[in-house]
Amino acid sequence: MIKGIKFSCVESGIKAKGLDLGLVLFEEEMNCFSAYTRNRVKAAHIHYNMKQSMDRVKALLVNSGCANACTGMDGIKDLRDISHVLSNELGIEKNQVLFSSTGVIGKRLPKEIIKRAIPKLINNLHEENIEGFARAIMTTDTYPKIVKFNFKGKKEYTIIGVAKGAGMINPLFATMLVFLFTDYPAIPKDLSRYFKRSVKETFERISVDGECSTNDTVLFFTKKGQKDETGLNAFKESVFRAMKELSLMVVKDGEGATKIIHIFVKGAKNKAVAEKIARRIAISPLSKTAFFGCDPNWGRFIAAAGDAGVPFNPDRTEIILEGRTLVKNGVEVPFDEADLKKLMDNKEIELTLHLHEGNASFDMYTTDLTYDYIKVNASYRS
Amino acid sequence: MIKGIKFSCVESGIKAKGLDLGLVLFEEEMNCFSAYTRNRVKAAHIHYNMKQSMDRVKALLVNSGCANACTGMDGIKDLRDISHVLSNELGIEKNQVLFSSTGVIGKRLPKEIIKRAIPKLINNLHEENIEGFARAIMTTDTYPKIVKFNFKGKKEYTIIGVAKGAGMINPLFATMLVFLFTDYPAIPKDLSRYFKRSVKETFERISVDGECSTNDTVLFFTKKGQKDETGLNAFKESVFRAMKELSLMVVKDGEGATKIIHIFVKGAKNKAVAEKIARRIAISPLSKTAFFGCDPNWGRFIAAAGDAGVPFNPDRTEIILEGRTLVKNGVEVPFDEADLKKLMDNKEIELTLHLHEGNASFDMYTTDLTYDYIKVNASYRS
Repeated sequence: MIKGIKFSCVESGIKAKGLDLGLVLFEEEMNCFSAYTRNRVKAAHIHYNMKQSMDRVKALLVNSGCANACTGMDGIKDLRDISHVLSNELGIEKNQVLFSSTGVIGKRLPKEIIKRAIPKLINNLHEENIEGFARAIMTTDTYPKIVKFNFKGKKEYTIIGVAKGAGMINPLFATMLVFLFTDYPAIPKDLSRYFKRSVKETFERISVDGECSTNDTVLFFTKKGQKDETGLNAFKESVFRAMKELSLMVVKDGEGATKIIHIFVKGAKNKAVAEKIARRIAISPLSKTAFFGCDPNWGRFIAAAGDAGVPFNPDRTEIILEGRTLVKNGVEVPFDEADLKKLMDNKEIELTLHLHEGNASFDMYTTDLTYDYIKVNASYRS
Repeated sequence: MIKGIKFSCVESGIKAKGLDLGLVLFEEEMNCFSAYTRNRVKAAHIHYNMKQSMDRVKALLVNSGCANACTGMDGIKDLRDISHVLSNELGIEKNQVLFSSTGVIGKRLPKEIIKRAIPKLINNLHEENIEGFARAIMTTDTYPKIVKFNFKGKKEYTIIGVAKGAGMINPLFATMLVFLFTDYPAIPKDLSRYFKRSVKETFERISVDGECSTNDTVLFFTKKGQKDETGLNAFKESVFRAMKELSLMVVKDGEGATKIIHIFVKGAKNKAVAEKIARRIAISPLSKTAFFGCDPNWGRFIAAAGDAGVPFNPDRTEIILEGRTLVKNGVEVPFDEADLKKLMDNKEIELTLHLHEGNASFDMYTTDLTYDYIKVNASYRS
């Protein structure tokens, strides 16, 4: 727990069943770092948050069960309306509230239901209630995703992170919502580049189905106050570690996933080439079904690489799967197929493509593509 | 049938079972138009064919069961070897033979098996044997894909087309092989732009799983001889019609597909924007599972559009599914969900996104994403 940061959750009725509304209240005004989806279609909470001042935040309200995306100006007005009621009840200013949503696209927030739930939500606030909050933002995540650890500066600090991952409600988008909290005094103007880079190196290196949500949000709340340079390195390491651990939790709990695949592209002319090839393999349905089927059908990986839209000479490519070399100079070398199939049954698999054309590399994580992905996503919403 | 063009097929043993080798013999030297995969990893037959002269072709040998891709120089030498034997037996020149392959990537052609099959293959040659040839190039296609019709110039001409589509053998790549034949005298230097454009507007407007094969090939064989300007328009129309019909057969027979979706993007600022959005929706797993599940979950279509990497204002977007308007100015309008679900059960569905930002448009065809796609592709090759 972090002194002065309280969490709460209720079953408000946005969803047919289960916790669906979470609140965070900050005793002191906080700084907030933010990163949002790159999708051109952005949920109302993103448009709304981007207009608030991010250096005196006192509350965060998050709902599951409704994405509040593609709801036009009305969707933003709904948030204004709710912030009015919530800030009144909390005795804070209207523009000190931030929002996040996840759920079905195109439906308005059930405003009255939310407003009615506010008194109970405030009543439930507690410094130890992070798990309840983590559960309130879940959709079909199979477990709440929380990280928490301490690091040292002039004094001991805590960082807590919570995420909801690639799950569907009835069904909806695989939105990723991530919230991080610390009592370390971090100043956005000094550290926003570090924050952005950490997001890029963690949450932007996972893929479940290659879809980009309208609601993806990362908010990081830090205390205000005097700098603590002594703790700076420990702080940075902790931020990165919290993000990395949460991002792995998200991909591991991907829709229908039975395993995660760590894709490593090495020996590229430059990082952009390595990244494009890694990302192309990460979304390749034929590669992902091969992982599900434990089939060392490496032709699918190299064909996906060849379709990445970047230049490389496939005649130099080496392919290594779970430490076994399958391909050298672009052609197959003898390998024990039965052994490989067994290794591919592991919960975590490592695939390396070495291009032998330079020194740049890129790595990321993806899931397999399974019957359950179809099941989760092909069922009716209603 | 076309006089002077003979087809043949045998069960040579490349596959464990079934026809796997097809031959076409041209009595006269033919012109050949060609288009190949854009994948940077290209099968041996593509490298080989690109070095042959394309204005005096006398034979085409096609095998299924082995892609002969990622086989390095050896894969090309194998073809040289086979062309030596085949041309000798046929009494033609070595460089008058073209090849195509489809099958598992990374395995060498079983050269001796193929050579042994040549006498029987030659023995089976017959002008009426197009269906046998079409069957020999199938993998898990569920039916042979043939089009045939006549058109008029100074005399009556015939065009015959044959394709193998998005099927897997055990499993392998969803390679598309297409061969067209006509007795109309078409000169490549006059008509190669028309050929390329027709390929682009037909075969490049279908998608099953967004994967780009190492082996994709379109070869069009035309007679040499005196021009027939009278028949030029009829010829052009026939070429386009043959390609269009074959491309629709390929997408309809896509792996695991239960329906095809005609995606129309209209009102775009320019064609590139319309094309990128259409292609992004066509490969969106969440859109494709919604089609499978008959779920009018339009948020998935607009979110895919928003992730296409091109600018548009989602607040102007109109979405029409099977003639019913779901969205106007980016927000939902009331629609009958039960009615929509029933309409989405059709074998062919039309989805239109109207951006209301200009006059450019683009349309293409895709399939739904189903349990059977996973089944076909997650099973072991062996």
